Amino acid sequence: MSSEPRNRQQTLALRKQFIGSSCKLFFPEDPVKIIRAKGQYMYDENGNQYLDCINNVAHVGHCHPEVVKAAHQQNLLLNTNSRYLHDNLVDYAQRLSKTLPEKLCTFYFLNSGSEANDLALRLAQQYTKHKDVIVIDHAYHGHLTSLIDISPYKFRNLDGQKEWVHVAPLPDTYRGLYRENHKDPATAYADEVKKIIDKAHQESRKFAALFVESLPSVAGQIIPPSGYFQKVAEHIHTAGGVFIADEIQVGFGRVGKHFWAFQLQGEDFIPDIVTMGKPIGNGHPVACVATTKEIAEAFSATGVEYFNTFGGNPVSCAIGLTVLDIIEKEQLQAHALHVGNFFMELLEQQKAKHPLIGDIRGVGLFIGVDLVQDQEKRSPASKEAEFIITRLKEEFIMLSTDGPGRNVLKFKPPLCFNTKDAELVVDKLDMILRACSKNITQFASSLSQLSLPRGS
Amino acid sequence: MSSEPRNRQQTLALRKQFIGSSCKLFFPEDPVKIIRAKGQYMYDENGNQYLDCINNVAHVGHCHPEVVKAAHQQNLLLNTNSRYLHDNLVDYAQRLSKTLPEKLCTFYFLNSGSEANDLALRLAQQYTKHKDVIVIDHAYHGHLTSLIDISPYKFRNLDGQKEWVHVAPLPDTYRGLYRENHKDPATAYADEVKKIIDKAHQESRKFAALFVESLPSVAGQIIPPSGYFQKVAEHIHTAGGVFIADEIQVGFGRVGKHFWAFQLQGEDFIPDIVTMGKPIGNGHPVACVATTKEIAEAFSATGVEYFNTFGGNPVSCAIGLTVLDIIEKEQLQAHALHVGNFFMELLEQQKAKHPLIGDIRGVGLFIGVDLVQDQEKRSPASKEAEFIITRLKEEFIMLSTDGPGRNVLKFKPPLCFNTKDAELVVDKLDMILRACSKNITQFASSLSQLSLPRGS
Repeated sequence: MSSEPRNRQQTLALRKQFIGSSCKLFFPEDPVKIIRAKGQYMYDENGNQYLDCINNVAHVGHCHPEVVKAAHQQNLLLNTNSRYLHDNLVDYAQRLSKTLPEKLCTFYFLNSGSEANDLALRLAQQYTKHKDVIVIDHAYHGHLTSLIDISPYKFRNLDGQKEWVHVAPLPDTYRGLYRENHKDPATAYADEVKKIIDKAHQESRKFAALFVESLPSVAGQIIPPSGYFQKVAEHIHTAGGVFIADEIQVGFGRVGKHFWAFQLQGEDFIPDIVTMGKPIGNGHPVACVATTKEIAEAFSATGVEYFNTFGGNPVSCAIGLTVLDIIEKEQLQAHALHVGNFFMELLEQQKAKHPLIGDIRGVGLFIGVDLVQDQEKRSPASKEAEFIITRLKEEFIMLSTDGPGRNVLKFKPPLCFNTKDAELVVDKLDMILRACSKNITQFASSLSQLSLPRGS
Repeated sequence: MSSEPRNRQQTLALRKQFIGSSCKLFFPEDPVKIIRAKGQYMYDENGNQYLDCINNVAHVGHCHPEVVKAAHQQNLLLNTNSRYLHDNLVDYAQRLSKTLPEKLCTFYFLNSGSEANDLALRLAQQYTKHKDVIVIDHAYHGHLTSLIDISPYKFRNLDGQKEWVHVAPLPDTYRGLYRENHKDPATAYADEVKKIIDKAHQESRKFAALFVESLPSVAGQIIPPSGYFQKVAEHIHTAGGVFIADEIQVGFGRVGKHFWAFQLQGEDFIPDIVTMGKPIGNGHPVACVATTKEIAEAFSATGVEYFNTFGGNPVSCAIGLTVLDIIEKEQLQAHALHVGNFFMELLEQQKAKHPLIGDIRGVGLFIGVDLVQDQEKRSPASKEAEFIITRLKEEFIMLSTDGPGRNVLKFKPPLCFNTKDAELVVDKLDMILRACSKNITQFASSLSQLSLPRGS
């Protein structure tokens, strides 16, 4: 929009001047200026092409022409609130309902995953008339006041834990309480939830919900053991609470085998509330809460209106519908499964060669590579992970880390990411790991003194 | 998006099936299906044209071609998060800063007014390390959990008032505690705030903020007496709190005389935090918080990142910038002042004729017509107000009511609303009032039996 293009330093200087410094940049010491993007590729101001392994929002690919067209066509016609009847709203809700178990048939549309999780919390508390919530350790459910309260990832660094929030252990079978060698980790982790409920009941507390990301993401790309959701759902239901599945990061076909990540737990598992965000509008601010008629009716029984100014407008719904069309037409769910499996195999080959790689886990195009200092102790290789993503960036591959130890390489690319892209990433990763295999820890702790091979 | 157009009843049936019933329709018993809009006009599925006196979001006019174009051009190029450098973000922040007092120079971008108010609350509480908030009676600050807590309009019907929330009287000089005949209502209302602070201090409570809509809107289109903000700001500052001006409904030139409604209180008044939403993106989900360097730095001192997935993306910023361009290029602020004054004069002429009209108040294109059953008692004529907007709808004029008694006709049209539109509205209003002047209350209470003149 500016009259003449600025260089990166000028943009950075203005950013420091005008934007709250709590809003962080990727690679803050050497940030990237991106001016255009297409599919799984982004381009900086000098025309360098980056392979995007991060952006789970640009779900069907950056600037997908059909999404852009749908937005434009609807913008030309009408963009107003949902207090008027409009077909896009009902078409979109109906279409989403076809992807979900029949029971989840009532929809609310909003502008962000955070807004969706906040509403989910209100729905649960209104329906149950209870207050308490169980969350999973290291979870992140959003940036709003109410969600910081239920996000251990955030509240541990801020105001601390509220008395109505209970933290259950992360069902991580690699580094958690019960591991791959446990005979029944699903039951063991679920029993931990039961213990929390029992203890709280002794203090006369009452549960509104168990709030869970279908695949804990910020916690380090965790795949809960199969059957865990059924067991904890039974516990929370017995306590009078509901099961909320946060699909904001992982929904819409990313996991390949299923459209929703909670379905990985089995056909018999149905959450009471599902929240959706990030990929839902391919970058356009859209979000959704799906729930049962029963919960929706308890919510409206208060007589208090729920009005969201922008939520469910015809443009957002047109875009959401188009994203669903593209996932279907381009068979992106099957593609995510195929490419994800291929990618995981290549990564497994790396694991055999590089002792830094402790664990590779994932489904579809949701993959974590857990880096360890020691294969036995499984101690997080945090600095090494940071070093690797810094080097990958120099190789024009955008990747981020996550997990409590920030030692998990986190792959969540646009779903058009292909097998060639996977090969490129693994080749570069191999090169970086080989170049410093003798003492990567030393390398990582003296980043500035490095003169590793650059470019390909 | 559907293959063949549905009629209104079919759309309504699907809406009832799939959308939470807490999401209300305008005129729920006979809702309107709008399929396109342009400027200040909306069109239903039968081609009927409605004059839109409600939509303060479609600020520069529905589907303004330059907004649509800006969205499309940026959608073609890039839509990603603010962790990468981008000129639109910094251009937009810089441009907004030029509309504000110099002190308000740090910006956060979000997706909705609710998200903005939630962040404003966090900023205030983090900066002051205090918790308590003073709000104005009948205020509405958003649909999120944290905002229902500070919205008497909502919490009175839900969980009730939290101990950290204090409600000050609405500075309404027509129906409030101190009226137009009071010699200094600004001081009198400000003293009420002071009393609240003093009482809370005796209970060792500490104030984070006074949270005020620059013009209370849901409370009935209220214009606080001049000087009120300066006085209450002094009180809240002395108590260690900050002044938050919620400009979500009323900012961006609507009030005509000034770009921001808080500026109506005088050049010497500067809030500590300003929140923006609704009109900011002409319908696109955008919002903003502006604050001081000092407050922003206290917020980032926690070390906790603030990340908003969609907030500040290049598309939202391109749209926001274009809205500012259009306001300037089409001189919409001056236009709002001119048309607003003309409209108010016409309405004053109606007041002389119709005893139902108790008060007319407004600035620019933010106007309230307060209907009363009795000019002396000023008792709200709620049913009559509902009757009038129902009849106006039959005349293809969209208008809504507000205020605690839902008796205030609330004009907040797109700013392209013109003097001819004003004349049309006033003519129709006059016709409706005349046709039932003998006993409008009786008419209103037997809506279904009416056979008033329809059409023009």
